[in-house]
Amino acid sequence: MIQPRTLKGFRDYLPAVMIPRERLMETARGVFRSFGFAPIDTPTLEYLEILTGKGSDETDRQIYRFQDNGKRDVGMRFDLTVPLARFAAQHIGTLGTPFKRYHIAPVWRGENPQAGRYREFVQCDFDTIGTESVLADIEAVAVIDSLMQAVGFDAFTISINNRQILTGLLNYLGLSDQSVVILRALDKLAKIGRDKVADEMMKVASIDASKADAVLRLADCQADGDNEAVLDALPEITGGDETAAAGIERLREIFRGAVASGVSPRRIHIDVSIARGLDYYTGVIFETTLNDLPGIGSVCSGGRYDNLAGLFTKQHLPGIGASLGLDRLLAAMEQLNLLPDAKKAAPVMVAYFDRNRRDDYLQLANQLRRAGIGVEVYHEPKKLGAQLKYADAQGFMAAIIAGENEWQDGRVQLKDLRNKSAVDVDYRHDAAEPLVAAIGALIQGTSSCPSA
Amino acid sequence: MIQPRTLKGFRDYLPAVMIPRERLMETARGVFRSFGFAPIDTPTLEYLEILTGKGSDETDRQIYRFQDNGKRDVGMRFDLTVPLARFAAQHIGTLGTPFKRYHIAPVWRGENPQAGRYREFVQCDFDTIGTESVLADIEAVAVIDSLMQAVGFDAFTISINNRQILTGLLNYLGLSDQSVVILRALDKLAKIGRDKVADEMMKVASIDASKADAVLRLADCQADGDNEAVLDALPEITGGDETAAAGIERLREIFRGAVASGVSPRRIHIDVSIARGLDYYTGVIFETTLNDLPGIGSVCSGGRYDNLAGLFTKQHLPGIGASLGLDRLLAAMEQLNLLPDAKKAAPVMVAYFDRNRRDDYLQLANQLRRAGIGVEVYHEPKKLGAQLKYADAQGFMAAIIAGENEWQDGRVQLKDLRNKSAVDVDYRHDAAEPLVAAIGALIQGTSSCPSA
Repeated sequence: MIQPRTLKGFRDYLPAVMIPRERLMETARGVFRSFGFAPIDTPTLEYLEILTGKGSDETDRQIYRFQDNGKRDVGMRFDLTVPLARFAAQHIGTLGTPFKRYHIAPVWRGENPQAGRYREFVQCDFDTIGTESVLADIEAVAVIDSLMQAVGFDAFTISINNRQILTGLLNYLGLSDQSVVILRALDKLAKIGRDKVADEMMKVASIDASKADAVLRLADCQADGDNEAVLDALPEITGGDETAAAGIERLREIFRGAVASGVSPRRIHIDVSIARGLDYYTGVIFETTLNDLPGIGSVCSGGRYDNLAGLFTKQHLPGIGASLGLDRLLAAMEQLNLLPDAKKAAPVMVAYFDRNRRDDYLQLANQLRRAGIGVEVYHEPKKLGAQLKYADAQGFMAAIIAGENEWQDGRVQLKDLRNKSAVDVDYRHDAAEPLVAAIGALIQGTSSCPSA
Repeated sequence: MIQPRTLKGFRDYLPAVMIPRERLMETARGVFRSFGFAPIDTPTLEYLEILTGKGSDETDRQIYRFQDNGKRDVGMRFDLTVPLARFAAQHIGTLGTPFKRYHIAPVWRGENPQAGRYREFVQCDFDTIGTESVLADIEAVAVIDSLMQAVGFDAFTISINNRQILTGLLNYLGLSDQSVVILRALDKLAKIGRDKVADEMMKVASIDASKADAVLRLADCQADGDNEAVLDALPEITGGDETAAAGIERLREIFRGAVASGVSPRRIHIDVSIARGLDYYTGVIFETTLNDLPGIGSVCSGGRYDNLAGLFTKQHLPGIGASLGLDRLLAAMEQLNLLPDAKKAAPVMVAYFDRNRRDDYLQLANQLRRAGIGVEVYHEPKKLGAQLKYADAQGFMAAIIAGENEWQDGRVQLKDLRNKSAVDVDYRHDAAEPLVAAIGALIQGTSSCPSA
């Protein structure tokens, strides 16, 4: 006998977790498609040199790698960005630009598992490649807004910044060479506070207090509900630097375009303090936080980059993209009671307790399915109590009960399994409409006020 | 510069392939759920001993295997059945029985790639575990029927057999010990013909000609449209053996139950010649063939097994399941022109050629999306010709064109990109209904008669 177990850092998804997870992915796909993003997929395994080409030492160490039977050094992808770069280098000639894709797929990292982090997890990315147009930036904000709303969130904030503004300020201050270290220090602002960030800047980047203060004054410039006011104040703070000015104007275009695209201005927060550690962002960057759960961090982040696939092709491919944090979002939905209370894939169970009527139960189930209602017929003609116990444990919303008397009378009992109430509903094989309507009302009613 | 390439036996999915593929998977999920099957997922990597525990030598050799950083011997799953067995052994106590799951996920086999076969491919399985009820068998047939119809097929045949019938006959003939080799020979009937199968049986199983003939008489017993007639003839052919008789009656129940569940009797073919090589099937087995493409083989196959997880638990877990051949089905749909001609995720492109009206284009796009219509706004205010060329190349169905005159008049031009016709449609931001209706009609019209 072999012990059944999963590897450390890996997990099984049982239906109660997988059902909302799958719904979330379907919702995301629908939103991506509605903006013209198309799905792609790439192999799990890539030549190792492709994966290690761009990565930092840390991600390199985390790659699951081995030699295949053909003695090739291969690795399992650790994100969807490197495969996209390789994919774009190979196929962009066929696909043309702009190329808009989404990709929802698992990635693997052999890191030490921590609470809520696994060695296998799903990434959910969308990108527009091959254009520097501000329209692609605006669209990214609109996609995030639509995603969050489609998933069921109302109270969220999309924070937007443009890297060019800080780049311009550093240029004005003569600190362009130290931009990476300053950016890393600034990224810690929310965590360690203003003074410690200033200390770090002075120490690591060897800049004086006044320059550190100038950088932090930029970060201090908060919108407080009036994004246009911040945009108006920024030129002075950045000393009139041209790069910064262009970045500010672009940010204004993105803000206004997003509002024209239907994004509520109260959901947008121009926040010049966000930096996002990754070095490859060069333009607009964004983060998305939940107003009721700010502590969990950003659930959808991304930004604009200058050149996606420089390692694989000479073709210059600027782009913009973002990644939806699927697991984080699901955890938040659970905490905020936003997950539909659906343990079961189908809402209705047909009880089966008269063997002679089996074909009648089957026919009834078929009719409900044709009307779009998911139905399971209980598998054995056991006692009703056992069947209802199963229905409860499995999380069905309703049960349909019919014995010989009901069949002869042309009716069935429809039992609401949440509140245990039951009603008789007319039903014959040639007249299913009243039952379809009654189930529809029951499902509607309970799903809007689930018993948690 | 690193050469961008994929590993031998692996492939990228470009949008033109991925769009129908993703739709097919969504359709399958919808059908599974409508019968109460719930999704699960399991890790890509498993302890190697779990994967090699049940496999044949051949699959063992094909497993992608390596040592992870913790010096554990691990492998990538080569099917979804072994992980299901491991999963069931671990979780069935929590989940209860019957447990109905579907699982759509990639698997990996390091076999030598042939035409149309890859080292990474998606399996699409559904199983009901923990019940011997005939209802589960009936349901499996109904699921296959619904799947095939939902995908768009009308002319298909679900062939059904019950292993018990042959088991009973072999018992009657005193050949029970040779059942595996006889089964393997029988499996080749369609390929090599009656005489060669008889030869193989006599040679490999050392049986005499009369017994080989008795086995083949069973296989000869074809339905030719009258399934009940075959069921009536079988008891005599199987010499009145009790196991066979029970198997025949069960097959009759499945046939009648499937018809009660809405499966057209003309789509069911009781075929006692199908054997399916896999040794672990013990009851009903089925295959699904396309009437217009019989040569591609079965697109959905499966059957009943006695005990799923004997390697991992003492708990007896009988079950029934089947696997949809996603890639084979997609290839068939392409051959039969059943694939929707959708290269693009969204059907409508909004042309963008007046920069001052950018926010108007964005607002229009947002309104159409809210009405459920996928829209992409072209990314740059280029010449109209360039935009329409892009729209054609990308496979959009329609383009919306509006310049300053149109905006002032409260109308836009709606261009059907298939037949190049164009109409003017009233549109204002506060009156989008006529445009929504016109696009709806255009999409409906063209999708029912795609220009191939």
